[in-house]
Amino acid sequence: MLSNTDKAYIAGFLDGDGCVMFQLVRRKDYVYGYQVRASIIFYQKTVHRDHLEWIKEQFKCGYVRDRNDGMSEYTIVGIKSVHDVLLQLAPFTRLKKPHVSLALRIFKALPKRFTSERLIAVGKLVDEFKGLNYSKRRQNTAATLEEFFNRHDSP
Amino acid sequence: MLSNTDKAYIAGFLDGDGCVMFQLVRRKDYVYGYQVRASIIFYQKTVHRDHLEWIKEQFKCGYVRDRNDGMSEYTIVGIKSVHDVLLQLAPFTRLKKPHVSLALRIFKALPKRFTSERLIAVGKLVDEFKGLNYSKRRQNTAATLEEFFNRHDSP
Repeated sequence: MLSNTDKAYIAGFLDGDGCVMFQLVRRKDYVYGYQVRASIIFYQKTVHRDHLEWIKEQFKCGYVRDRNDGMSEYTIVGIKSVHDVLLQLAPFTRLKKPHVSLALRIFKALPKRFTSERLIAVGKLVDEFKGLNYSKRRQNTAATLEEFFNRHDSP
Repeated sequence: MLSNTDKAYIAGFLDGDGCVMFQLVRRKDYVYGYQVRASIIFYQKTVHRDHLEWIKEQFKCGYVRDRNDGMSEYTIVGIKSVHDVLLQLAPFTRLKKPHVSLALRIFKALPKRFTSERLIAVGKLVDEFKGLNYSKRRQNTAATLEEFFNRHDSP
């Protein structure tokens, strides 16, 4: 179990230089054609890679990789892992508080059984997330899903 | 008084995206010609300036300024203020632990009464600090002080 000061420390580190993000990822093998992907990413110079490894040990999930520009990333991907980590950090995050609360809304909105309508509803929450992250990169949006379901017969 | 989780949070935020730094600053009005300047700087997008103001409220020193590139900085300058803040964060810092411990050595080495030799000794510790920060900018070093004292009569 992580202590409250460790959780608070990691929440501060995430607020300083980390990223929480949701994406709608095209997956041809998925019944509804898209995956809702949740990620948390911590960044640090590769010389301090052991710092990222320390955070990874605390959460026991995700992976650390070295980029080719002297930076390393610790990435946690997946609904369950991201949910678990955010629940631990939630009481201590400050800058990322809107991200955490929107993430928890997305997790709640994720149905056990999908329909195209439910996926579009989740897609709209994912769109809100991009606003929080000032994301400018073109990614799939709820509108992409709507177009997709218009072009395809509903499964 | 700051709670331990607030201290741990700010230590994490400083580790993620902050800076602790020492400089030898030329001051013509100083008897020994140079000032030992200590600073802590926290960075954040100007849209989150209130976050920096919150940290400032906790420490009750320093100032927040907006740069002209969409970023803001909260800067704490001065031996006493930086010393006070680092003592509070020390138990919780991780990446900046070497900085904090070297800073505490510098504070200890700062004499009540300067001599050129004592200032050069402090200057050498300040040089070590630049190594911790991977600083490439040319700044005054202990060697600058030695040259200075060779050119000037000792006060």
